[in-house]
Amino acid sequence: MSPSSLDELIEALRCLPGVGPKSAQRMAYHLLQRDQRGAERLSKALAHALAVLRHCARCNTFCEGEICDRCASPRRDSHLLCVVEMPVDLAMLEQTHAYNGLYFVLMGRLSPLDGIGPRELGLEKLVARATDGTVKEVILATNFTNEGEVTAHTIGELLRARGVKVSRIARGLPVGGELEHSDTGTIAQALLERRPAQDASR
Amino acid sequence: MSPSSLDELIEALRCLPGVGPKSAQRMAYHLLQRDQRGAERLSKALAHALAVLRHCARCNTFCEGEICDRCASPRRDSHLLCVVEMPVDLAMLEQTHAYNGLYFVLMGRLSPLDGIGPRELGLEKLVARATDGTVKEVILATNFTNEGEVTAHTIGELLRARGVKVSRIARGLPVGGELEHSDTGTIAQALLERRPAQDASR
Repeated sequence: MSPSSLDELIEALRCLPGVGPKSAQRMAYHLLQRDQRGAERLSKALAHALAVLRHCARCNTFCEGEICDRCASPRRDSHLLCVVEMPVDLAMLEQTHAYNGLYFVLMGRLSPLDGIGPRELGLEKLVARATDGTVKEVILATNFTNEGEVTAHTIGELLRARGVKVSRIARGLPVGGELEHSDTGTIAQALLERRPAQDASR
Repeated sequence: MSPSSLDELIEALRCLPGVGPKSAQRMAYHLLQRDQRGAERLSKALAHALAVLRHCARCNTFCEGEICDRCASPRRDSHLLCVVEMPVDLAMLEQTHAYNGLYFVLMGRLSPLDGIGPRELGLEKLVARATDGTVKEVILATNFTNEGEVTAHTIGELLRARGVKVSRIARGLPVGGELEHSDTGTIAQALLERRPAQDASR
């Protein structure tokens, strides 16, 4: 007997990660009863973000123009390209102030069990970026999880086959750890101690 | 360096209850990267709900017209009025199939420490509804928490002073328990065993 617009709102809230039926209901009542201004702001922020955000043509992260501010900056070292899984990882690396190169954001990781292979992840865009003539070294900074390691390994193989110098950030991070949840000191150390990526055929 | 529309979305997501900065960031990336359709649906559902939902003129719950379907139904017993805190509580009572009267949804509870007194809660709307001539008994079904008990006591005093018969659902629910998280059997029992509200002056 509850109105359809309320049911639809509760159902729509379930698209948020980690939100089940009870949480969605609680969120809907909270927004409608206690924070209509917040609800309106969220509705508009979602619509606006969907309308204006796209992927930077060079680093693939979210940006509002063709190329993001970082890629367009003349003060960054364009010879270095650091590959990360997600924008949060990029943000963590930036917080260390230990890196002044550019980035490539995969927006995910290889995950064969979920059907995400090199094509689904769009690795050809990374290969094109890494072989554009300006990049002298690609630093692989994917997570040290199984999927992150497989991703780093696959990218390393692809780029070495094209004559690109590839390194991996040091395993200063704990095994199984994720960039997002590490402290900046550990991440800075891992950046400094990066080593040449090993060739699996040796 | 992240685009302002992304920052704004992350900030806007924090209006959701229980969502901190990290969760908001995770939600934003998830929506933009993996579920743009869900994000669009959520944006529209929020805007639509804000536009069409209002409070039923009789029971105060969310509805899309002047009066909700339940209050307009000729098959409900209009002599009984059950007072609950939130729409979820109403939904739980309905699931018991043990009650065929009407409801009044407070959309909250008295909470003096948060500055929510009888006026802020809009108890005059309940008093007007309970004394409109058709209601013969008001059943107080607020939670058995401290705030719910204070709310029931205050409403009981107000209505008895106006000659309205008032009862309280039985304490079949555990002390400190909330309707939303109880099983339907316990709630049905509490409805059946309701008792006349005690006069505090005696």
